Amino acid sequence: MERGFPPAEFQDRVARAQKWMQAAHLDALLLTTEPDVRYFTGFLTQFWESPSRPWFLVLPASGMPIAVIPSIGAELMGQTWIEDIRTWRAPDVTDDGVSLLTDTLNGLNAKRIGTPMGMESHLRMPLADWARVQVGLNGKVVDDAGITARLRAVKSDREVAKISQACAIAGRAFARVPEIAGAGVPLSQVLRDFQRLCLEEGADWVPYLAGGAAKGGYGDVISPASDTPLTDGDVLMLDTGLVWDGYFCDFDRNFSVGPISMHSETAHARLIDAVNAGADIVRAGTTAAEVFHAMDKIVTGGAGGSDAGRLGHGLGMQLTEGLSLIPEDHTVLEAGMVITLEPGIETGQGKMLVHEEDILITDGAPQFLSPRAGPHMVQL
Amino acid sequence: MERGFPPAEFQDRVARAQKWMQAAHLDALLLTTEPDVRYFTGFLTQFWESPSRPWFLVLPASGMPIAVIPSIGAELMGQTWIEDIRTWRAPDVTDDGVSLLTDTLNGLNAKRIGTPMGMESHLRMPLADWARVQVGLNGKVVDDAGITARLRAVKSDREVAKISQACAIAGRAFARVPEIAGAGVPLSQVLRDFQRLCLEEGADWVPYLAGGAAKGGYGDVISPASDTPLTDGDVLMLDTGLVWDGYFCDFDRNFSVGPISMHSETAHARLIDAVNAGADIVRAGTTAAEVFHAMDKIVTGGAGGSDAGRLGHGLGMQLTEGLSLIPEDHTVLEAGMVITLEPGIETGQGKMLVHEEDILITDGAPQFLSPRAGPHMVQL
Repeated sequence: MERGFPPAEFQDRVARAQKWMQAAHLDALLLTTEPDVRYFTGFLTQFWESPSRPWFLVLPASGMPIAVIPSIGAELMGQTWIEDIRTWRAPDVTDDGVSLLTDTLNGLNAKRIGTPMGMESHLRMPLADWARVQVGLNGKVVDDAGITARLRAVKSDREVAKISQACAIAGRAFARVPEIAGAGVPLSQVLRDFQRLCLEEGADWVPYLAGGAAKGGYGDVISPASDTPLTDGDVLMLDTGLVWDGYFCDFDRNFSVGPISMHSETAHARLIDAVNAGADIVRAGTTAAEVFHAMDKIVTGGAGGSDAGRLGHGLGMQLTEGLSLIPEDHTVLEAGMVITLEPGIETGQGKMLVHEEDILITDGAPQFLSPRAGPHMVQL
Repeated sequence: MERGFPPAEFQDRVARAQKWMQAAHLDALLLTTEPDVRYFTGFLTQFWESPSRPWFLVLPASGMPIAVIPSIGAELMGQTWIEDIRTWRAPDVTDDGVSLLTDTLNGLNAKRIGTPMGMESHLRMPLADWARVQVGLNGKVVDDAGITARLRAVKSDREVAKISQACAIAGRAFARVPEIAGAGVPLSQVLRDFQRLCLEEGADWVPYLAGGAAKGGYGDVISPASDTPLTDGDVLMLDTGLVWDGYFCDFDRNFSVGPISMHSETAHARLIDAVNAGADIVRAGTTAAEVFHAMDKIVTGGAGGSDAGRLGHGLGMQLTEGLSLIPEDHTVLEAGMVITLEPGIETGQGKMLVHEEDILITDGAPQFLSPRAGPHMVQL
């Protein structure tokens, strides 16, 4: 499968952004995070793992984006479709890109500059430098009106293909779990080996892997692995966000170590029922809240939520992005959105089971990107 | 090797922070990023990969830290030494922790609240919510006076042991590169297999891996891998930041595909000379700039810097953290700091070689945590 995107894809993203910027009276967008910068440039590197240097992308109301970046990234940015690349030698203890960014925005005569300020956004640069930038600007920085998040929420066919590829890789890795897990194997070893399976099946890297294992359910779904060996009667859960060409999958699978208890089997089947209930109604025009309620009715009888929070979320360049399947999120789903259906069920005091699938929203029935699981848990 | 830290280690970190807070007239610290929150709590999870929820830690001028976090993290935070854990059901579209955080800080009667604002810091929460927090506070938010970064820069023996463990794992993986790389193997396959080797040798996960391969040197050190097969005469570079129990190593190795050219051999030997020159002078009391100049004299004859930027940096809970080996950084090194020595050398138009080692600063000669490489490049 082809990596990257043709320039036309980025031109289209820019054109749509600029149309919305015009409606929101924005003269420029300022972007600072890895996915936002990559969305308009194709700049893909794990180097963001280093917090030492800020990176900026300026999208004017018309014309092409301008990269304002550390010189160490000039070679790689030069391989993208971006032509206007302005660099400084970072880290610079006296002026770490502040004046270069300020000059760039002032040079555009930008009066209203939008930057993401809404939920799950953050500004990836030091607050002290942010204050300096604002002092130096002739214009004013305001919320980007959600433009960046809204654009990213609806995926192109090429983006869907990459997420689908990531899902297929994880699916093959999950199918091989019986090779690596069983009674007596420490959970930490299972997680290490599962990452290896993901790589062998084609993942570029595995930024997220959570696992739990306990009798009748696990305590939470975000803990790193302990060295405790699996024992008969445990339910083992593995939840991975692996990446292919910069796009994530995010789904989990549950396995029974030894014979499955009736209690766990029933709970698992109910989770699959909940996924089915969500899938039955989810399509362009449905709201996130409606999908939540369809699933919540199955897993809690309609309690309206739990501490685990949402029953799914958007997915794409990040492990989680965009909408949440919660009662208060009334986002209207659109064809091209990719979301997870992630019902959880309490199976006892402080214990739960969670199941997750990744789907593409269409005008009709959703398309499952993850290999849809059946009601029966796989026995190890 | 034991995972985690005893409560005494966290108590010591808190006590030192509170002493410095007193000197800086700070009534509380507010922390929002993964390493800063983990430093005072031990809260270790890959769940930060999801940007959807903010997480807060409040450290009062006296007493224990207070975790203000999404309820999905309560179980895991409850396993740390933290006792005061306040949660909300996130994501909450109307109030995503804003009032809980504000109430917590106002409840402490905090007038001056420090948060990291200096180089390489950022605030991990939405700007719109940050504005709301500041409106709701009785006190004022100011720079944390670098306290968090200064504390984290000097490692405890237990922290050094974890970094050392990560270095040893990477060292064993590098020793096995001849198993996976050679003429005809695509670079992307080498990177995938190298991650597998890191996991097999004991890495918990591999958040960073960069690679380059070309005749006589590579174009940059941050690109993801292409599918181009290695060919005789290439220099292959692999640079990894793998993690063991939340601590990174960060060093690279260069390999010759087939016989080594005299040009590459000489350049590589010069990089080792530069590391030796840095190691000869680096100890408690030396400045970052002095170490830079000792190495720069070898690699450029004393040009004073290049676009690749620094010749090393701090290391620990992040791939890169703290000081930079550049002419303008006059940070005085202290025993217990862990840094990298990372000289680079231009080997032609747009080509370079980079070598990197990880060392512990002591009162005498530095202790190499990475298995110190000799002048001869390994031939594949």
